[in-house]
Amino acid sequence: MSDAKLLETFPNPAPHRDFLIDHTHHEFTSVCPMTGHPDFADITVRYVPDKTCVELKSLKLYFHAFRNQGIFFEAVTNKICDDLGKALKPRSLTIISKWKARGGFTSVVTAEWSGKNAKMTR
Amino acid sequence: MSDAKLLETFPNPAPHRDFLIDHTHHEFTSVCPMTGHPDFADITVRYVPDKTCVELKSLKLYFHAFRNQGIFFEAVTNKICDDLGKALKPRSLTIISKWKARGGFTSVVTAEWSGKNAKMTR
Amino acid sequence: MSDAKLLETFPNPAPHRDFLIDHTHHEFTSVCPMTGHPDFADITVRYVPDKTCVELKSLKLYFHAFRNQGIFFEAVTNKICDDLGKALKPRSLTIISKWKARGGFTSVVTAEWSGKNAKMTR
Amino acid sequence: MSDAKLLETFPNPAPHRDFLIDHTHHEFTSVCPMTGHPDFADITVRYVPDKTCVELKSLKLYFHAFRNQGIFFEAVTNKICDDLGKALKPRSLTIISKWKARGGFTSVVTAEWSGKNAKMTR
Amino acid sequence: MSDAKLLETFPNPAPHRDFLIDHTHHEFTSVCPMTGHPDFADITVRYVPDKTCVELKSLKLYFHAFRNQGIFFEAVTNKICDDLGKALKPRSLTIISKWKARGGFTSVVTAEWSGKNAKMTR
Amino acid sequence: MSDAKLLETFPNPAPHRDFLIDHTHHEFTSVCPMTGHPDFADITVRYVPDKTCVELKSLKLYFHAFRNQGIFFEAVTNKICDDLGKALKPRSLTIISKWKARGGFTSVVTAEWSGKNAKMTR
Amino acid sequence: MSDAKLLETFPNPAPHRDFLIDHTHHEFTSVCPMTGHPDFADITVRYVPDKTCVELKSLKLYFHAFRNQGIFFEAVTNKICDDLGKALKPRSLTIISKWKARGGFTSVVTAEWSGKNAKMTR
Amino acid sequence: MSDAKLLETFPNPAPHRDFLIDHTHHEFTSVCPMTGHPDFADITVRYVPDKTCVELKSLKLYFHAFRNQGIFFEAVTNKICDDLGKALKPRSLTIISKWKARGGFTSVVTAEWSGKNAKMTR
Amino acid sequence: MSDAKLLETFPNPAPHRDFLIDHTHHEFTSVCPMTGHPDFADITVRYVPDKTCVELKSLKLYFHAFRNQGIFFEAVTNKICDDLGKALKPRSLTIISKWKARGGFTSVVTAEWSGKNAKMTR
Amino acid sequence: MSDAKLLETFPNPAPHRDFLIDHTHHEFTSVCPMTGHPDFADITVRYVPDKTCVELKSLKLYFHAFRNQGIFFEAVTNKICDDLGKALKPRSLTIISKWKARGGFTSVVTAEWSGKNAKMTR
Repeated sequence: MSDAKLLETFPNPAPHRDFLIDHTHHEFTSVCPMTGHPDFADITVRYVPDKTCVELKSLKLYFHAFRNQGIFFEAVTNKICDDLGKALKPRSLTIISKWKARGGFTSVVTAEWSGKNAKMTR
Repeated sequence: MSDAKLLETFPNPAPHRDFLIDHTHHEFTSVCPMTGHPDFADITVRYVPDKTCVELKSLKLYFHAFRNQGIFFEAVTNKICDDLGKALKPRSLTIISKWKARGGFTSVVTAEWSGKNAKMTR
Repeated sequence: MSDAKLLETFPNPAPHRDFLIDHTHHEFTSVCPMTGHPDFADITVRYVPDKTCVELKSLKLYFHAFRNQGIFFEAVTNKICDDLGKALKPRSLTIISKWKARGGFTSVVTAEWSGKNAKMTR
Repeated sequence: MSDAKLLETFPNPAPHRDFLIDHTHHEFTSVCPMTGHPDFADITVRYVPDKTCVELKSLKLYFHAFRNQGIFFEAVTNKICDDLGKALKPRSLTIISKWKARGGFTSVVTAEWSGKNAKMTR
Repeated sequence: MSDAKLLETFPNPAPHRDFLIDHTHHEFTSVCPMTGHPDFADITVRYVPDKTCVELKSLKLYFHAFRNQGIFFEAVTNKICDDLGKALKPRSLTIISKWKARGGFTSVVTAEWSGKNAKMTR
Repeated sequence: MSDAKLLETFPNPAPHRDFLIDHTHHEFTSVCPMTGHPDFADITVRYVPDKTCVELKSLKLYFHAFRNQGIFFEAVTNKICDDLGKALKPRSLTIISKWKARGGFTSVVTAEWSGKNAKMTR
Repeated sequence: MSDAKLLETFPNPAPHRDFLIDHTHHEFTSVCPMTGHPDFADITVRYVPDKTCVELKSLKLYFHAFRNQGIFFEAVTNKICDDLGKALKPRSLTIISKWKARGGFTSVVTAEWSGKNAKMTR
Repeated sequence: MSDAKLLETFPNPAPHRDFLIDHTHHEFTSVCPMTGHPDFADITVRYVPDKTCVELKSLKLYFHAFRNQGIFFEAVTNKICDDLGKALKPRSLTIISKWKARGGFTSVVTAEWSGKNAKMTR
Repeated sequence: MSDAKLLETFPNPAPHRDFLIDHTHHEFTSVCPMTGHPDFADITVRYVPDKTCVELKSLKLYFHAFRNQGIFFEAVTNKICDDLGKALKPRSLTIISKWKARGGFTSVVTAEWSGKNAKMTR
Repeated sequence: MSDAKLLETFPNPAPHRDFLIDHTHHEFTSVCPMTGHPDFADITVRYVPDKTCVELKSLKLYFHAFRNQGIFFEAVTNKICDDLGKALKPRSLTIISKWKARGGFTSVVTAEWSGKNAKMTR
C-alpha cells in the first residue's frame, strides 16, 4: 500500500539559488480499481527545492508501494502531488504521469502543487 | 451514429486544484461524406476538470459510434468539442484531431471550448 | 500554370468559435526558373476560418498546377499566401514551405497573411 | 579565404509583408586554428528580408570559401552574422551554427544581428 | 579531484553583441557517494559571454577531473554553475545535467547563475 | 462483407522476369467477433506476379469490405492469402498483417501461399 | 503465481498451411528473487501452429500471474517456452524476452522449443 | 518523355574487382495513367559494374524525363531495369522503387536484371 | 584493475536446451593508454550457456574494474572474450564493443570464443 | 594529396582468433573533379586483422589528406581498399562509403579486398 512516510529527504545543497530537479520514473505500475488489470506509467517529479530534496532511493520505494494498489489515473497523480508537496514544501512542484495504451487511448495527467515562492518551473 | 448521451462522468477527485487531463484516442475512424471512403485520426481530449471527469470506457464507445458516420474533419472536431463541453462543463477544453494522409495531405484541426475559469491549458 | 480560381470553399461549420485548421501537402513540386530542375516541398496551410473553409481536393488541384511552373521559393510561398488570403478572408493565415536539399541547403519560408480578427495561430 | 563580396542578392518579391526565410547549409567545414584539424557544422541563416534576399548559390560559394581557413566556432558565427547583416540590411537576422562532436563535445553558437524593424524572428 | 583552476578562457571575439554559446559534453562521469557506483551524464554549458569565453579543451579537462569523485547530481550541477560563473562572469549562464537511468529513474538538473546583464538565454 | 470478387487484375507488364511487388495498406480495420470492438492493422501483400497483377484500387475496395466484419487475426490473414492466391495464381505470395495494441499485445501474422515457380520472395 | 492451466486454445483455422503468429506483450512484470525489486520486459511468443492456437486473452492472464513472482530472466523465459510448448504442441515456437535497464544493462533471452515439423520460423 | 539515350557512362575504374554501387534518387515523379495525378518515389539503382559505370548527372536527367509521363509502378520499374541493363551490361543490377502513400497504400517494386557474372548483390 | 575473478556464475536453469542470453552494458568506460583520455562503449555479451550462466551483478563489477585501466579497443574486447570464455565454458560466445566518437570515428569490435557445441548464435 | 604512407600499424593483440574491427569515419570530404564542389561521406573500414591492425590516428590523417583532392566516388572507395589491403594484408577487408545528397541522389559504394583466409566479414 502506498505510504507517504516512505519518502526521505536531504538538505538542499544550494538553497541560495532557485534550481530545477526533474526525476522521471519509467517503471511505475498500479492496478485498475474497476477491472483489476495492471496499468503502467512514466511519472515525472519536477520541482524547485526549498530546504530539502527528495532522496532518490526512497522515492523509488514510495513508487513501488503502489504496485498492487487499485487507483485511477487522476487520483494517483493528485495523491503523489499532495504527498511530495507535504514532504518537501518546495518552491514549486509539478507531477506528470504518462500512461501506456489502454483500449486504444494513451493518457497524460499533470498536477501542480500550489507551494510558496513558485518562480521557476519551465 | 454518434451520440453525446454515451458519455459518462465521475466526480473530480481533486476539485481544489486546476489539473490537466490529456486522453489521446489512436483508433478513431469515420467516413468521408463525399466519397464514402474511410478516414482515420488520432483525437486528443485535453481539459481541466471542474466538477466531473469523463469516464474513459464511455469515451471510447462515444468515439466508436462515429465508425460508419459520414462527416468532415472540421465538423467532427467541433462536434466532439461541443458534446464534451456540454457533458463536462470543464474549466477548459481543447480537442485536437490529427488525420492520416489523404491525397498527399495530412491535416490537424484544433478547437477550444470557451468554458468558465479557463486558466491552465498549456 | 497556377491559378487561384481553382480554389473552392465551403461554409465554416463552426463560425461561433475560433478554431485552427492545418493542412500539410507532402507532394508539392515546381521548377527552378534558373536551372529548369525540379524543386520539392512540404507546404502547410494553417488558418482560422471566418465564413469559409478551403475544400481539400480543390487545394490539391491548385497545388498540382505549379508542377511545371518556374518560380522561386520566396515567390511561391508569398503567392500561395496571397491567393488563399483573398479566397478565404480568414481570421488568420500562415503558409510554411519546407524545401528538400538543394546544393547542400534545406530551406523553410514562412509568410503570414495580415487578415482581420487574427487571434489564435499558435 | 572567406570573402563577403561573394554574396549576391536579388530584390525581395514581397516587401509589403514581414516573412521569414530559413536556409540551413549542411556541409560547412573550416579548420581549427590551433590543431589544423577540420571542423564540421550545419549553419542556419534565418532572416526577415527588407529590400533584398540572398541568392542561394552565392551563399553556397561564400560558405565554401571557409574550407581551408583556420577560425574558431565563436568567431566564424559572428563573422557570418556581420557579413550577411551588411549585405542584406535585413529587418532581422539570426545565425545558428551546430558543430559536430569534438573531444566529446557538441556545440551550438547563436548570434543575432541588430538590424532595423526587427519584428518577426520566432 | 575537480578543480576550478583547470578552466582557461580567451577574449570574447564579439563583445559588442549578446550571442549564445552552448557546449554539451556527452561523456561526463562521476561516482555516487553512497554506493561507489559510477554515474553518467550529458552536461550542457549555455552562456552569453561578457569579456571572456571558456576554452573548450580546458573545459574537457575540468570535466574529466570529476571521474573518480563522489558527488550527488544536485551538488555537482550547482558546483559547475558556481565555478563557471566565477571564471567567466558571463552575461548569463545555465547548466543542465541529464543523468542516465539509475534504479528506473532518469534525472535532469538545471541551475542558472545570477550574473549581470542577463538578457538572452532562450 | 468481404468478397474476393472485388479483386481486379491487369496483365503483368514484364512476365519474362521474376520481380517483386509489395503493397502495404495502412488503414485496414475489421471487428473482433468476441467483443465487437474494432481492430486495426497494416497489411502487406508481397508477391511475384505470373500472368496478372492486382489492380491497386480494387485491392483497396476489397480491404474496405472487411470494415464491419467480425473475424479473428489468424483467420483474416489466411483468407486474404487464399483470395489473392486464387485471383492471381502468382509465382509466390506472402501476406503479413501487423495489428495495433490490444490488451498490451501487438501481433503479427504471416502466411505464404504455396504457388508454383516460387523463386524470389526475399 | 504463474500457472500453465490459465492458457486456453482454439482450433487452428488454416492447418493445411504453415503460417507464423507473433504476439508481443509489452507489459510483462515479475520480481527479482534476490532484491525483491520489480523487473519489466517485452515478451514475444512466435510460433507456427499445428492443431491449436493460443487464445490471446488467456495468454494475457497467464502473463499477469507472474506479477508478484520472484524469478530470474533466464528461468522465466524457459518456463514460458515449456508451458506454451506443452499447451500448443506447435510446429515451431520461439520465446524472446527483452528486459528493461537494470544496473546499466539491458538483456534479451531467446529460447526455442524443439517441437515437431518445425519448418518456418524466420 | 523518358529516353534511354540520355544515359551516359564512364569506364569502370576498378574492373579487376566486383564492387557494388548503390545510387538512390529521392526525387522521382511521374504521373498516374488512370487519374493524371502525380506519383512520387525513391528509386535505387544497385549494380556491380563490368566495363562501364553510369554517369550520375545523366542518370538524373534520365529520371527527370519521366516527370510528365503516364506510367504504372510496375511498368516504370521494369523499364528502368531494361534501360540500365542494356546501357551498362553490368555484372548484376537491381532496381527498387518505393512509392509514397496512395489511397492508404505504400508500395515497393523490385526488379533484377539477369546479366552475366552476377556474383555480389547483397 | 580488471580481474576475471570478479565473475560469478550460477547453474544453467535449462541445460536440456540451447538458448541465447544477450546482456548489453551501456556504461563501460576505460582509458586510452596513449593519451590518458577516457573511452566509452556499449558492450554486449551474447552466449549460449552450457553448465553455468554469468551472474549479472558480478558482470557489472567486472566491467567497473576497467574504469581507470589503460587499454586499447581491440585488446579489451579480446580480453573480455577470453575471461568469459574461461569462466563459463559456454556452447558459444560473442563479445561486441561499440565505441563512442573519437576523432570523428566510431568503432565496433566483435570477437567470438571458439567454444564447444556452438550451434545457435544468430 | 592522399598518401598510403600515412597509414601506420600495430601488432594484432589476438592473432589466434578471427575477430572483426569496424571503424567508421564520419567526417570524410573530398572534391568533385568535374565541378570543384566538395563531397562528403561516412567511410567504414571493416576488416579481420592478420598480423597487424591500423592505428586509428594515422587512419584519420590518411583520410584528411583527401580534403582538397578531386576524385570520383567509385575511384576513392577502390583506392582506400587497395591502400589498406596493401598496408594490412588482412584476413578480409571491406570498404563502404556513404555519400551525402548530390542532385537529389545519395550513393553507397562497397568494395571488398580479395585477401587470404577471408572467413568472417558478416
